[in-house]
Amino acid sequence: MKNYNKALFAGMVFTALSGCQNQTNDTQVTKIENTKDNAVSQQLVLKALDSSLGYEIVESLTVEVGPRLAGSEKDIIAVEWAMDKLKSLGFDKVYKESVQVPAWYRGSAKASITAPYEQPLVITALGGSVSTPEEGIQANIVRFDTLADLQAADPELVKGKIAFIDHKTERHISGKGYGKSVGGRSRGAVAAAEKGAVAVVIRSIGTDHDRMAHTGMMRYKDGVKKIPAAALSAPDADMINSMLKRDDNITLSLNLTSKNLGVATSYNVIAEVTGSSKPEEIVLIGAHLDSWDEGTGAIDDGAGVAIVTAAAKLIQDLPQKPARTIRVVLYAAEEVGLVGGKAYVKQHIDELEKHYIAAESDFGAGRIYQIDFNVNPNVFEQVQLEHQSMTINGVKLGNNKASGGPDVSMMPGLGVPVASLRQDGTDYFDYHHTPNDTLDKIDPKALAQNVAAYAQFAYIMAQSELDLRPLAKKEPK
Amino acid sequence: MKNYNKALFAGMVFTALSGCQNQTNDTQVTKIENTKDNAVSQQLVLKALDSSLGYEIVESLTVEVGPRLAGSEKDIIAVEWAMDKLKSLGFDKVYKESVQVPAWYRGSAKASITAPYEQPLVITALGGSVSTPEEGIQANIVRFDTLADLQAADPELVKGKIAFIDHKTERHISGKGYGKSVGGRSRGAVAAAEKGAVAVVIRSIGTDHDRMAHTGMMRYKDGVKKIPAAALSAPDADMINSMLKRDDNITLSLNLTSKNLGVATSYNVIAEVTGSSKPEEIVLIGAHLDSWDEGTGAIDDGAGVAIVTAAAKLIQDLPQKPARTIRVVLYAAEEVGLVGGKAYVKQHIDELEKHYIAAESDFGAGRIYQIDFNVNPNVFEQVQLEHQSMTINGVKLGNNKASGGPDVSMMPGLGVPVASLRQDGTDYFDYHHTPNDTLDKIDPKALAQNVAAYAQFAYIMAQSELDLRPLAKKEPK
Repeated sequence: MKNYNKALFAGMVFTALSGCQNQTNDTQVTKIENTKDNAVSQQLVLKALDSSLGYEIVESLTVEVGPRLAGSEKDIIAVEWAMDKLKSLGFDKVYKESVQVPAWYRGSAKASITAPYEQPLVITALGGSVSTPEEGIQANIVRFDTLADLQAADPELVKGKIAFIDHKTERHISGKGYGKSVGGRSRGAVAAAEKGAVAVVIRSIGTDHDRMAHTGMMRYKDGVKKIPAAALSAPDADMINSMLKRDDNITLSLNLTSKNLGVATSYNVIAEVTGSSKPEEIVLIGAHLDSWDEGTGAIDDGAGVAIVTAAAKLIQDLPQKPARTIRVVLYAAEEVGLVGGKAYVKQHIDELEKHYIAAESDFGAGRIYQIDFNVNPNVFEQVQLEHQSMTINGVKLGNNKASGGPDVSMMPGLGVPVASLRQDGTDYFDYHHTPNDTLDKIDPKALAQNVAAYAQFAYIMAQSELDLRPLAKKEPK
Repeated sequence: MKNYNKALFAGMVFTALSGCQNQTNDTQVTKIENTKDNAVSQQLVLKALDSSLGYEIVESLTVEVGPRLAGSEKDIIAVEWAMDKLKSLGFDKVYKESVQVPAWYRGSAKASITAPYEQPLVITALGGSVSTPEEGIQANIVRFDTLADLQAADPELVKGKIAFIDHKTERHISGKGYGKSVGGRSRGAVAAAEKGAVAVVIRSIGTDHDRMAHTGMMRYKDGVKKIPAAALSAPDADMINSMLKRDDNITLSLNLTSKNLGVATSYNVIAEVTGSSKPEEIVLIGAHLDSWDEGTGAIDDGAGVAIVTAAAKLIQDLPQKPARTIRVVLYAAEEVGLVGGKAYVKQHIDELEKHYIAAESDFGAGRIYQIDFNVNPNVFEQVQLEHQSMTINGVKLGNNKASGGPDVSMMPGLGVPVASLRQDGTDYFDYHHTPNDTLDKIDPKALAQNVAAYAQFAYIMAQSELDLRPLAKKEPK
């Protein structure tokens, strides 16, 4: 391909990709300069779209490992899987770094309405929840539209009851509905306990109508009683609302056997494509290896693991390596509090100034429609210019307000530039943290489009001669 | 409305329904004669589409009763609910007839792959299955595309193994894919046991990709060993296929605690709108009251209960009752072998000649797109002519090959004419017999369209002066 006429090649890419373009609304394809880097970037797209490697990786992880809750036996099996997989792909370096992670045992979760009508419920324990007493908890429920309503409630209304936070999650391509409702999951138990509740149940933080509950992390607070916390499926939450129209007194029986198991050892698993001329400078592309234990962790975050690994492998296989090192980080224990991400910046604190830019893929396998950055505002337009070849893959050039993804979200505060490759998350919260997070929810073509975008981003950034620092000071909210 | 200009009224109906028309492909609206019966039939459509009674009934049943497995305590609560509901609606007669039904205890169902990779599976016991031994069954699986393939297999391949029937159910508006795959559920255990298998597991008979297994009835055969039978969710069946690509030896661990509990008493619950001039002649519209126990029995068959009850109520409330009696039959124990339907024809054998026509609603709440009959071929065209007013509700006039629905399917063999009001079942088998069979899967507008169609059908047939008998002799298959 080296001697190929570049203009002809660019035309070929346009033709080959015209199908993809049509699938993206508001597509922006800009004129792409005939540079060598742009030619390589466009080659990477063609190779990515023609390869099934990304899908093979997520298939392998979900079939051969499956659920891999941080701190569990399966978590270690996942680490071994990742080491083997990265080694077998022939990266220049493969290693792991230990991380201390909280371990939690799910146990069983049972609930039913016992009055005014007996009805079994479909629930799941929230991650980190304590158990109920062995005999369970039976109490009337008190319903709130939102966490804020619970926080504002008269404690007399809540005392001795099970607080029910009924916040519906709105569907949106960006997933922004999640941010609005998830506080009820993470902080509901504290708010409920502060008002004297004996337990908290929430409408699942999800956009589906499946009779499956969405798990996810919840937190306790020192000095506030730890009460059990669970999520109901959407149809069960609807049923309680129907009952409340008939009777204010709804009695719920709840039995959880979950428990916290202290601290376990897990690992951030890392692979590198060594840079040709600036090997000490790092372009970090990450995803998290752990998953919740209800599904097989396909969209969260097997997809991300596959995307960044397959993207780096495309670069590993280039005849000429880019200037900087591409570092793939498969983070430990994201789900239980960004534990691997926090450990990474701690362990690499002295090296952070050599991190040129970082990005994480952790939003399923929906197509990437936009790339945002957080770089020095003075070079932002030039950075966008360098990424023009991403538009042929359906990726718009967005804004300079990126956070970079959960496990790299602490990096901008430490001066490290980041990018966010925005995925179509319209259906992400239908499956997120449920038994339905399985391989069949991944569209291989959309996954390959993600691989292409990450490969382009990583390659372009590894070659760039721009100085991306310092970042703009964060505006106070 | 009595003195309303009929032509104007017909025009009004057309205008009011134009929205509905657009929702149905291949709509056939024929010229409708200006008769009094047609005017009433069209009034019934308007009233049905303007009423939420059908939705209120299925909401009430699913919220106040929920799952109601034949022979269980909840089954009796459902019978009480039905008696109360039908009485409260003011039908001329409300009564129940006892039926002996098989009772079965679901217990728990657990399964996992133990080799080559440990993976938990989502399964459900098939209705009527025996338990495993207390310690469960651990055996290698042997996979078959279809029941027929299992039946044709060399017993040496099956002996001592768990037979896995992996038949995918095809999606179709008529639901015809179910008929092709369901044999594996009902007859798989016998076929597997005859070859020496220790258990049978099937890919769920469903069209979804949800991680939920579809239950449903299975049968044993005298003289053949009773082996445990369970269904896997589609993603779990997919996972096993992925493992089989890597390793022929897949070990499955299965533990069921289900058991048969002998015979219990249930009831067919019946309501009547007494005919004005031929009260002894009966137009039967039925549905089944029992449900599987995984969901709340909304689409199967709370919807049918709502549709036929609300339709009859519209006729009950007419200023002038039709000639014949409308009999609503809410059948017991359909799911476990059409038990209520068979009991009804036995108990009413002497009265069957007075059954003018019968139809059952048991296919969810999708819109009715066609009405088929099984009547004397000599009057078929006249029967269609009488039903022309159904076309304004989006219902095409179909063929003369109806079976009438599960609980009335034995009636044509006994000389009773039947009709099948064909519903759009495109997504019916996504939810059928799973925890996902809940109220939110019902579109209130589509339900009301069903109510309108059943009200028209029942009214027209209760007024008809045609002799629908004798039926055509059934052609040998």
